[in-house]
Amino acid sequence: MIDEKIVPAGQVDPAYLDRGIFFGDGVYEVVRSYNGKIFALDEHLRRFAASLAAVGIAKVDSDIVRKRVLQAFSDAQIPNAKIYFHVTRGSQPRNHLPDANVPPNFFLTVSELDDDADVKRNGIAVSTHPDWRWKRCDIKSLNLLPNVLARMDAAKKGCDEAIFVDDNGLITEGAGSAFFAIFDQALRTSPLTANILPSITREFVIKAARNIGMLVQAESFTPTEAAKADELFIAVTTKDIVPVVRFDDKPIGQAKPGNSTKRLAEEFRSFT
Amino acid sequence: MIDEKIVPAGQVDPAYLDRGIFFGDGVYEVVRSYNGKIFALDEHLRRFAASLAAVGIAKVDSDIVRKRVLQAFSDAQIPNAKIYFHVTRGSQPRNHLPDANVPPNFFLTVSELDDDADVKRNGIAVSTHPDWRWKRCDIKSLNLLPNVLARMDAAKKGCDEAIFVDDNGLITEGAGSAFFAIFDQALRTSPLTANILPSITREFVIKAARNIGMLVQAESFTPTEAAKADELFIAVTTKDIVPVVRFDDKPIGQAKPGNSTKRLAEEFRSFT
Repeated sequence: MIDEKIVPAGQVDPAYLDRGIFFGDGVYEVVRSYNGKIFALDEHLRRFAASLAAVGIAKVDSDIVRKRVLQAFSDAQIPNAKIYFHVTRGSQPRNHLPDANVPPNFFLTVSELDDDADVKRNGIAVSTHPDWRWKRCDIKSLNLLPNVLARMDAAKKGCDEAIFVDDNGLITEGAGSAFFAIFDQALRTSPLTANILPSITREFVIKAARNIGMLVQAESFTPTEAAKADELFIAVTTKDIVPVVRFDDKPIGQAKPGNSTKRLAEEFRSFT
Repeated sequence: MIDEKIVPAGQVDPAYLDRGIFFGDGVYEVVRSYNGKIFALDEHLRRFAASLAAVGIAKVDSDIVRKRVLQAFSDAQIPNAKIYFHVTRGSQPRNHLPDANVPPNFFLTVSELDDDADVKRNGIAVSTHPDWRWKRCDIKSLNLLPNVLARMDAAKKGCDEAIFVDDNGLITEGAGSAFFAIFDQALRTSPLTANILPSITREFVIKAARNIGMLVQAESFTPTEAAKADELFIAVTTKDIVPVVRFDDKPIGQAKPGNSTKRLAEEFRSFT
């Protein structure tokens, strides 16, 4: 039954029987292009392969994924594009234990990216939320309900991003971004663990910091510390570096983007 | 792009843009019928409403859900049926923050249930797995990848169910079932917390235990304790009570279903 319509079992479109919808049984990636060139595709394809391996989805050829990404991107003719793609374990009648013979499903969208110039110039406000996610956030899976709930909570508070805080009172990362602080001109972010996505943008931020001679510390910090940081920012594929000017309703620095963040963003742009 | 096929954005079937697949942004229920009569439908509808409220999916009328369940069940003409249904927050281009105007999607399947006579007579083997689930397992959400991975791990070990063990070394529940032990003729199971689904079958098992004068203890226990239990069993809507005769490869009792479990299963059947 789909909404009010009864459909005989044999005639249900396989899209409705996707293990992605029944279980979130799949993994995804988001890449973007700058002026007609996809950024860090190799890195994203490598992480995608790692996610697939971690959940045991076999028979997905990275070269075929690459070919599809390039083909869809070329077909869409969007110079500054966001490319989202996922693979699920396939479509079958609902059963936790998968049928090994079912082929995986591939889905991809290409859409135009805003340049977010205002957001980058003025910065955003963020709010904290308990980190309710599962214990394998190093896998980029389709189980994102806690991220959605946190983002909804942030929006209610007039904020653009939610920052997760774990049971130990430490910040892990954003609901859809990596999170960084500048303390005494040093860059600080959580170390990579099973609770943190190995963000590719994070790696490029760290590289940018090293390039401009900034000290990098992979060490967790608390919301109380964050509120006292000299600067804060988030980093995400679709927007690269976005300054954070309010944290749980407390102004950061002068409530406007700081100089170190600006220098990092400039250096980051040299990679793209 | 769906597999290899490029589809213009405006022509993608909304089934592919379901927030259920992008985020697992939805909740579900499973009810069953015994000889043409649905068991505990009110209880399941109440829990469904609680799950919807917990994730903030509004505009779903419980009476309409009930009507649809009854209509699909009546239409299918299956006396011993499994009825699965979910509601997602709707279909829209992917964005963590939902568009409030998008109507929720409803999906339901009716299928024939095995009577599992062999499984109930002989019992099953179970194996433990770290509880990787999110921190709100009291919500029956579509974020079930950890359950799938645990069940796959169990199958690899020749087991029919995975039993989750949390960071404190305590058993929470099964990947798709509640978990019970009998120690000295008393029934023991984990207390209800945010890490445990408020299982409806669990409630009926507890009621059955009280009916036959068995002591009930809602107190967690470890895998080491479980392996030394007099009897173990799982309870799940689709199979009610299923004896567990091997736990992490150790035989339980005489490696066959125990008497207390049998008495509970008989009492349970009196409810249906």
